[in-house]
Amino acid sequence: MKVVRVSIFGFGTVGRALAEIMAERGRRFGVELRIVSITDRSGTIWGDIDPLEAKEVKETMGRLSAWDEYEVFDFSPEELVQEVRPDILVDVSSHDEAFSMYETALKEGIGVVTSNKPPIANHYRELMKAAEEGGAGLFFEATVMAGTPVIGLLRENLLGDDVLSIEAVLNASTTFILTEMERGSSFEKAVEKAKEQGILEEDPSKDIDGIDAMHKAKILHWVAFGQEAEEVEVKGIREVTDARRVRLIAEVSKGRIRVQPKRLSEGSPLLTEGVLNAAVIRTDLLGELVIKGPGGGGKVTASGVFSDILKAASYMKPLR
Amino acid sequence: MKVVRVSIFGFGTVGRALAEIMAERGRRFGVELRIVSITDRSGTIWGDIDPLEAKEVKETMGRLSAWDEYEVFDFSPEELVQEVRPDILVDVSSHDEAFSMYETALKEGIGVVTSNKPPIANHYRELMKAAEEGGAGLFFEATVMAGTPVIGLLRENLLGDDVLSIEAVLNASTTFILTEMERGSSFEKAVEKAKEQGILEEDPSKDIDGIDAMHKAKILHWVAFGQEAEEVEVKGIREVTDARRVRLIAEVSKGRIRVQPKRLSEGSPLLTEGVLNAAVIRTDLLGELVIKGPGGGGKVTASGVFSDILKAASYMKPLR
Repeated sequence: MKVVRVSIFGFGTVGRALAEIMAERGRRFGVELRIVSITDRSGTIWGDIDPLEAKEVKETMGRLSAWDEYEVFDFSPEELVQEVRPDILVDVSSHDEAFSMYETALKEGIGVVTSNKPPIANHYRELMKAAEEGGAGLFFEATVMAGTPVIGLLRENLLGDDVLSIEAVLNASTTFILTEMERGSSFEKAVEKAKEQGILEEDPSKDIDGIDAMHKAKILHWVAFGQEAEEVEVKGIREVTDARRVRLIAEVSKGRIRVQPKRLSEGSPLLTEGVLNAAVIRTDLLGELVIKGPGGGGKVTASGVFSDILKAASYMKPLR
Repeated sequence: MKVVRVSIFGFGTVGRALAEIMAERGRRFGVELRIVSITDRSGTIWGDIDPLEAKEVKETMGRLSAWDEYEVFDFSPEELVQEVRPDILVDVSSHDEAFSMYETALKEGIGVVTSNKPPIANHYRELMKAAEEGGAGLFFEATVMAGTPVIGLLRENLLGDDVLSIEAVLNASTTFILTEMERGSSFEKAVEKAKEQGILEEDPSKDIDGIDAMHKAKILHWVAFGQEAEEVEVKGIREVTDARRVRLIAEVSKGRIRVQPKRLSEGSPLLTEGVLNAAVIRTDLLGELVIKGPGGGGKVTASGVFSDILKAASYMKPLR
């Protein structure tokens, strides 16, 4: 069985769900996955790491550096790659500047798997180039619709089709707020409730003003068209007063992204509830395709990350 | 650019739609596809074939053997493989016994792409073994939901998830009949209308009695569970009297397949219309995923076949 060494960068909800999955299913498709380092805000532990113990330590002690079985290293992201030299680097952090860490890894032939949106949304072209240079795979299923495989569907399927457009609900927090408003709540009260339930960040602007949906739309645009969107218009949900059948919709067509609240017709596949995301993909040969599934949550996101790790581990390279 | 030689077996609606796509998009992802033989009921033409000319000949003269630019060979399916020795064999016929042709090809390291259901439904295990022996890929996206990539979604994504169940509408002809009945038509009249519109075969039993849906469900079962279904129950739509919100539903769970008409709740994702197919896939990590798209038509089916040809041509091997 081929042994594949994995570094995990970030150890929040998704990282810990991933640890649990890797403990259970670390051997699949002729590959044995071993975690060789985990990094949280307190530092990097490096060695032969038991995923469940790491999860336990993090959950009881709050930080990995409190674990006295391991020396704790204060690596920069680039040093992490250079020192640990894993086979696969997994980023499940929300570190906005992770781009140069990926670039370093890919150029060294180290596969990169990530659920972190901004580095892919903003540096796709450079990263794909680095991946080609290093002969390594770059995988980012969980950046859009979490574990629901819309990225795999676009990158590894419909290979003869040309995408015409994508319309999608990519942010479930705004869906929560809008459905609360549909039930009679004010915008402010709905936002309060979303905060109470832990659905929104402390700075809720990323969700409410459409930034999160825009990052995801940019990634879809790169994958569907292989180029950057020139025109990007983003309008969040702050000005919505009548929320009936309104969702925050990302529209992606060649060269263009538009994120805005839209009133949908009864029975539209985009009229999602709860944590569901949905995308309507139109292509020239197939016509219209709908994919719908959960767009968030630790385990769901970790499912996408883990599937990507298995792809990277077996060197299956997407064609686009 | 790598040249990949393709043999096409079967030259009906799907084969001709494929020829058209290959003429337009024969160079993608660093691969140049060339058609080296086409077989229809009249024989095999062998040489450097222009796809659009072949389509033209077939449509004006009814059979390829009428084309005097090519010698016509009367190969058996196995002889075709042995003599022409393409890089990829594409079966877009409805030849029930194509299994041994695939086996011969795969063992010789020739990739097989097919839209023909029974050989995969009935011989999956032997074929996967032959594929492993020969180091060749076996691709069958278009056998289930035509070009809508449910097979790619299950084989090449969700790799860490265990599938719990699949519920799906896999046969659009029965949907046509049932929706006609919902509008007040009798079963017999609805069948007549479906025949008139060319939606049903002359022997409509394959659709109406659930045989087609069963073949597709068997393929989904193989892919989802890697084993044969032990219990298979099939009931068609002949006994449906009240068709309101009824569709022919295939239920697939480990070891078990059930195809039967079921009354769906309002708003069910399986309450499809027209040519649409839909599948609800439940897995342990992700939860519930819906994929919906066209399940038939020449161009739509050819889209799935062509995507598979590109996969086979670049030797991307699914992990399951």
